[in-house]
Amino acid sequence: MTAPGTEMHALITRLYPICRSITGGGVRETLRIIQEQVPLELREVPSGTKVFDWTVPKEWNIRDAWVKNSAGERLVDFHKLNLHVVSYSSPLHRRLRLAELRPHLFTLPAHPDWVPYRTTYYEDNWGFCLSENQLNQLRHDQEYDVCIDTSLEPGYLTYGELLLKGEESNEVLISCHICHPSLANDNLSGISLAVALARRLGKSGRRYSYRFLFVPGTIGAITWLAQNEDGLSRIRHGMVLTCVGDSGHITYKRSRQGNAEIDRAFAHVLKHSGEPYDVIDFFPYGYDERQYCSPGFNLPVGCFMRSRHGEFPEYHTSADNLEFVHAEALADSFAKCCEVIDLLEQDRIYLNQNPKCEPQLGRRGLYSPVPNEEGSRCRELALLWVLNLSDGGHSLLDIAERSNLPFAVIKDAAAALTKTGLLRSAMLG
Amino acid sequence: MTAPGTEMHALITRLYPICRSITGGGVRETLRIIQEQVPLELREVPSGTKVFDWTVPKEWNIRDAWVKNSAGERLVDFHKLNLHVVSYSSPLHRRLRLAELRPHLFTLPAHPDWVPYRTTYYEDNWGFCLSENQLNQLRHDQEYDVCIDTSLEPGYLTYGELLLKGEESNEVLISCHICHPSLANDNLSGISLAVALARRLGKSGRRYSYRFLFVPGTIGAITWLAQNEDGLSRIRHGMVLTCVGDSGHITYKRSRQGNAEIDRAFAHVLKHSGEPYDVIDFFPYGYDERQYCSPGFNLPVGCFMRSRHGEFPEYHTSADNLEFVHAEALADSFAKCCEVIDLLEQDRIYLNQNPKCEPQLGRRGLYSPVPNEEGSRCRELALLWVLNLSDGGHSLLDIAERSNLPFAVIKDAAAALTKTGLLRSAMLG
Amino acid sequence: MTAPGTEMHALITRLYPICRSITGGGVRETLRIIQEQVPLELREVPSGTKVFDWTVPKEWNIRDAWVKNSAGERLVDFHKLNLHVVSYSSPLHRRLRLAELRPHLFTLPAHPDWVPYRTTYYEDNWGFCLSENQLNQLRHDQEYDVCIDTSLEPGYLTYGELLLKGEESNEVLISCHICHPSLANDNLSGISLAVALARRLGKSGRRYSYRFLFVPGTIGAITWLAQNEDGLSRIRHGMVLTCVGDSGHITYKRSRQGNAEIDRAFAHVLKHSGEPYDVIDFFPYGYDERQYCSPGFNLPVGCFMRSRHGEFPEYHTSADNLEFVHAEALADSFAKCCEVIDLLEQDRIYLNQNPKCEPQLGRRGLYSPVPNEEGSRCRELALLWVLNLSDGGHSLLDIAERSNLPFAVIKDAAAALTKTGLLRSAMLG
Repeated sequence: MTAPGTEMHALITRLYPICRSITGGGVRETLRIIQEQVPLELREVPSGTKVFDWTVPKEWNIRDAWVKNSAGERLVDFHKLNLHVVSYSSPLHRRLRLAELRPHLFTLPAHPDWVPYRTTYYEDNWGFCLSENQLNQLRHDQEYDVCIDTSLEPGYLTYGELLLKGEESNEVLISCHICHPSLANDNLSGISLAVALARRLGKSGRRYSYRFLFVPGTIGAITWLAQNEDGLSRIRHGMVLTCVGDSGHITYKRSRQGNAEIDRAFAHVLKHSGEPYDVIDFFPYGYDERQYCSPGFNLPVGCFMRSRHGEFPEYHTSADNLEFVHAEALADSFAKCCEVIDLLEQDRIYLNQNPKCEPQLGRRGLYSPVPNEEGSRCRELALLWVLNLSDGGHSLLDIAERSNLPFAVIKDAAAALTKTGLLRSAMLG
Repeated sequence: MTAPGTEMHALITRLYPICRSITGGGVRETLRIIQEQVPLELREVPSGTKVFDWTVPKEWNIRDAWVKNSAGERLVDFHKLNLHVVSYSSPLHRRLRLAELRPHLFTLPAHPDWVPYRTTYYEDNWGFCLSENQLNQLRHDQEYDVCIDTSLEPGYLTYGELLLKGEESNEVLISCHICHPSLANDNLSGISLAVALARRLGKSGRRYSYRFLFVPGTIGAITWLAQNEDGLSRIRHGMVLTCVGDSGHITYKRSRQGNAEIDRAFAHVLKHSGEPYDVIDFFPYGYDERQYCSPGFNLPVGCFMRSRHGEFPEYHTSADNLEFVHAEALADSFAKCCEVIDLLEQDRIYLNQNPKCEPQLGRRGLYSPVPNEEGSRCRELALLWVLNLSDGGHSLLDIAERSNLPFAVIKDAAAALTKTGLLRSAMLG
Repeated sequence: MTAPGTEMHALITRLYPICRSITGGGVRETLRIIQEQVPLELREVPSGTKVFDWTVPKEWNIRDAWVKNSAGERLVDFHKLNLHVVSYSSPLHRRLRLAELRPHLFTLPAHPDWVPYRTTYYEDNWGFCLSENQLNQLRHDQEYDVCIDTSLEPGYLTYGELLLKGEESNEVLISCHICHPSLANDNLSGISLAVALARRLGKSGRRYSYRFLFVPGTIGAITWLAQNEDGLSRIRHGMVLTCVGDSGHITYKRSRQGNAEIDRAFAHVLKHSGEPYDVIDFFPYGYDERQYCSPGFNLPVGCFMRSRHGEFPEYHTSADNLEFVHAEALADSFAKCCEVIDLLEQDRIYLNQNPKCEPQLGRRGLYSPVPNEEGSRCRELALLWVLNLSDGGHSLLDIAERSNLPFAVIKDAAAALTKTGLLRSAMLG
């Protein structure tokens, strides 16, 4: 069996060449490749469908695009890099002088080798993104053959959805955006992490039901919310996955609620990881947590990432490529999310069945015969903390936070105490 | 039009020579000069009136006072500086040796040129304040002609009141003490600031009603509270103005409530000013906030000052003179209070009319065409913050605090959103 | 009259030689000596009595124990040091080679001169504690005469209880463990402090009733709780006393409630002491606060100590001897507890009888004639704070905390105000 980071990087590599946008064939092709790994269902929502304040746009597809010189050489070529075309550019085929073309050309002067990523979803326009070096080769005295072979026609918005049912109908929502073309960290990394989590969760029993959404950013999340409003109360926890493959340290952005269990679970796991990390407060921009955390829903959905969107220079440029994401980072992101999910699965309130004075742990074999050994000391403290705080007002995560012990140690203590009958899950009535 | 600081300093200069006390002609003369600028009403409360635990004292007036040597020279002369007489000194005309006079002489040995300021309101006594240098010229072998030509008789306590009615009957209380003689910062500066605010507020529409009190310290505030107890529930915000003209940085002392809107408004404005400042907790001594914040009322009234009373050496001495206060400092105090008042006027709760997912700002022209320009970025963040937090539980000030954006930017965003119908004031029902 | 520290050290010295355990003659002898100083009642609870999850064990008594060499010399001798025998060792008289004896010998290799302290209360076993140096003198080729002359038979668990009735039936619980043999700091120091407090409290009137418990650790506290469950609601404050005679600084461990009045009282007294100290959060191990703070009771009982159990090298060794505890440290521990008890006795809620504006303190003689003298300034601030916060929602301790003034100053201000009728105790109805 391959290591999860390697598998995730392989999926990113396979999806990287496809030209995705918020609608169109590239999204469908992406979702069909994901279907090879997890039983995703594809949803098609017709253009023109009203979704809250928005309308599902026309479907955009692209076949080719170029800027040719008089010698017929492609100076800018969509087939070399799909970032070269501003996403949702309207079709065009004309001969233009540089002066006419220039307002439609976008570069990154600070990084003369890099090509920026641009979109014009909701404004009828067209354009090319190219490197500053490419731009410098264009001449004012020359006329260019400019072609954008796209179509913008009534069609569908496509997204993927997967529900893994658990013992409870309460759900954990895991969402990633699938609308970016050849950009690896943003967000093929998020897609690959969602796939890896779905595969892992599909293999074993689950307390919660897990709903995975692979949606175009903003309009996709809004469309899903508009069409699934009745079921939103089932969502107990959620996370948006984005930019999880770069070599930066992990950043978790809290939900709008600020102290939801998902927020505390990520904070706990990251704190005990011994590695650098950031936990930051919610703010109403970023990825689709904006929609899930809009005031009409206020769902407990945070955002899991490594380097923060907009804060690394490669963001939304051709430098966010296959070299920018690493199997080790992907594996670490996967491991942290698994640890958080395990915590959510196991967190619950227990009741001390012997709340008056301590029970006699020794005669139940719960005290170590070697009293001062480090691991056993920690286990015994965990037993005492669980007993002392299992008064109906504290979950295992509460106890882990208060005792400053790792959740896993607290959970094991609760399991050992449950076995002796000293502890009982509060949910068993 | 003259700059506000210059006008304020001019008023201070005009009022400076007058000998004020907690009652008497000096107070009346001061209030009549203020009436030239704002339509103040004068209230006269008879001596002997019971006001809570206190009684309005007899009225004190002074015509002259001196210490003359045998040559008839005035060594201490009330007409040179009214601080020379302990306020509320009882009348006296006698020949006294220095040994007899000495217990009634007050100096500041640490500042041999300065004359202290002293009172004996509620104890029948008399005295002179003089510089240490003056004291050193008096001789033990000599007899002095000592005269204090005062009267202490049934009369009135006089104060000034101005109500600027607004759209709401809810009031903002602005109070300053008017009982100090020739002391510029304490509190001619506070008087001049109150006048400047009243003039500005008188010129335009107002949401709140504004009540200005020009009262003798302690007994004046107590008298007003005793006589206006029924209307106190209208006071939504309030500030006591004192020592606002010196060159120190601004200090705001919170109300007893500690987190009243006025407290948060001052903290917000000062924080975003980029200048040094202090916000300090309430304590039950100081100026008339002591009375407004007594436990039986607990009004949301803070105290706005620059250098803190008792903490600058010139405090309650002749060095608190016209050179000690500066037009620039007065203008800055005025500007900060105006900014706080503007905030109070504009702060309210709005409701997002499209709370489910974000509305499409682009099609309403609310997104900048130049997306990365600094100002437009800040404006767009403000739009998103206002939409996200306008759930009925957050006022604009709440949103400004949470987003760490200046109130003015948040208010402008709310105005723009209101224009598009995306936002509605919660008070409009 | 002897200083309290000297008396306390004398009691420790007298009790030091006695071999105590959780039951048996040593405990009875200890309690009878305490009875010479305070009118303690002895309780005897029969072996086999069920107390919550525990059972009162058999009574253990020891007469003698040794390890002799072939020459009949006592190489390890109970009569030289009672720590030499593992407490609750079962009886034994055998000839044993070192190889057979060795698993029953305990030393402290890091401190070759010291003898450790060990118990085997709930496991049938036996053993000797000796110094590493003693161990090194034993030879593998030799056989030893090993004797432990103990009895473990149905009998009683003995503890001492003293109730000093006060004006109120509400109680302050003061508990110390009495089960350790010749260990001075742990816990003859706690015993001597409890005795000193009981003597002091017995001499004068008391608001609260004070219940002193001299109990074997764990099983004694559990037994008392099991037999006195109905009265626990009377316990308003409590403290466990342990390790209070060493030269370390004071540590107070909060009750499980975390912000009980006892917790705040200790924090206040220690903060204003001007000496180093620690206030630490509750954790569910340590001394009998574990039982009092178990979730079924959650009593407001903290733990008062100097050096923390388990964190000084002499802990549970022969080095915790009479030289390890000092009269000065004992006296300081006594003084701090007295100060806390005085605070509890005097803390209450008063009501300002003149809550609207300040009362006129001058005419009641409450303002100093020398206004700027330091002590009088502090007294006047205290008067103003007490008046301002005596609104029914703040106790004197609340006011002391908020004003950052020592409780004694606040209490004196309340007394002075009460004398004038400006303040009234809220409890007087």
